[in-house]
Amino acid sequence: MIFDILTIFPAMFSSPLEESIVGKARERGLIRVRVHNIRDWATDKHQMTDDRPFGGGEGMVMKPEPIVAALRALKDDGPPAKVILLSPQGRLFNQQIARDLSLLPRIALVCGRYEGVDERVAEHFTDDQISIGDYILTGGEIAAMVILDSVTRLLPGVLGNADSASAESFSEPVLEYPQYTRPQDFEGWSVPEILLSGNHDRIRRWRRAQALLRTSVRRPDLFSRLELSAEDLALLEAAGEEFGGGQSGREPDRES
Amino acid sequence: MIFDILTIFPAMFSSPLEESIVGKARERGLIRVRVHNIRDWATDKHQMTDDRPFGGGEGMVMKPEPIVAALRALKDDGPPAKVILLSPQGRLFNQQIARDLSLLPRIALVCGRYEGVDERVAEHFTDDQISIGDYILTGGEIAAMVILDSVTRLLPGVLGNADSASAESFSEPVLEYPQYTRPQDFEGWSVPEILLSGNHDRIRRWRRAQALLRTSVRRPDLFSRLELSAEDLALLEAAGEEFGGGQSGREPDRES
Repeated sequence: MIFDILTIFPAMFSSPLEESIVGKARERGLIRVRVHNIRDWATDKHQMTDDRPFGGGEGMVMKPEPIVAALRALKDDGPPAKVILLSPQGRLFNQQIARDLSLLPRIALVCGRYEGVDERVAEHFTDDQISIGDYILTGGEIAAMVILDSVTRLLPGVLGNADSASAESFSEPVLEYPQYTRPQDFEGWSVPEILLSGNHDRIRRWRRAQALLRTSVRRPDLFSRLELSAEDLALLEAAGEEFGGGQSGREPDRES
Repeated sequence: MIFDILTIFPAMFSSPLEESIVGKARERGLIRVRVHNIRDWATDKHQMTDDRPFGGGEGMVMKPEPIVAALRALKDDGPPAKVILLSPQGRLFNQQIARDLSLLPRIALVCGRYEGVDERVAEHFTDDQISIGDYILTGGEIAAMVILDSVTRLLPGVLGNADSASAESFSEPVLEYPQYTRPQDFEGWSVPEILLSGNHDRIRRWRRAQALLRTSVRRPDLFSRLELSAEDLALLEAAGEEFGGGQSGREPDRES
């Protein structure tokens, strides 16, 4: 898969592209990431990529010409690309969008800056607008890193089999159950006994109940969209009695 | 403000910390960002930071000891820090949380990896858990960059006055209106005439109507939380007649 990233801060990407999953996937030739400086397509002598907004107001707006010239120059340099503008006005990124994007041969990520991009770019020259969340970033660069990371890890061969299998559990909008590793007793807080029981069915049901309970408490918006099975309903009813609410074994004084 | 970032991929942060708003704020001494390698606090000879989960299952879980040792070592190295675990199980990051964090003298961001962090870290050694969105990232590193960028730009002196004023408009959950800059005619698509009218009150009302309309269409979840004024309601009723739905002037053939 090819990722074209259009930005006025290309240097921002250098270290994130070398590390972790994205770095490994590039090394192994599973993805290609090309970072393009929008400024290279600015035509005036000062290489301006922004200008004042029509109608007045604060801040600068990114001009349409350099972005559109860059998109045109890249158009035939690979398989057809889906062009995505990263923008607070876009649809909210989620795991289903990540999965959809991971099936494409190529995407182009246009990094807007916070003050905005001339609307004609979104209206006539891009295929989609995506926002990674309801907060204000200085620009689309970190949003592009989010999409690059989340899409890359879904590509065949990028994660080991074990990891990709567990990734699939996220296709349902439920938070993960609590995880514990060694030591069994950490400064007086011990691992829930059920996880040491070796009874795989009880462990599975405990984990499912924990996942449902924490989703209902922390993310009622996700919980309301869950389709609960008969077993789920029974687990939720039994929770608190059978499982004791998921607290660690004993409770020493809290660390301040 | 001081940001302590705890990660097993410290090198990932080098170029993002040099660029854009975060780079400038560091240069000017408005923020200090310290990136710590969790592995430096691993005590066994292989410097392991993860281990197999109790109760079975795929993937590895980050061990509690190195993270807790790192947090303790940093504890007195500055003003009191709010310790935040970046985790898909956390509360959803938003602009209000960014504002709250920007008032603190210091935050410590603990970057979990996707497979999970021993639950005792979240339960007993951190003050908050934050997720940047409903998608799966390989780790918390890019999430930490999101928080760093969005909080930094809210700090006094980081943005110019003009920019920070416009930033304040985001305190209401409404998408921004469309922005246009030169050229007035770009390949046949022209700027909406009202923006050239010089009538500031009409421009203000057009922008408000556009912002409300696109919020209602693209983000009904945000729209349902808006408190609409009498003027807002009148603008929405008049929209489509008075303003023609916000399309650009004329419509040439779409670029394929």
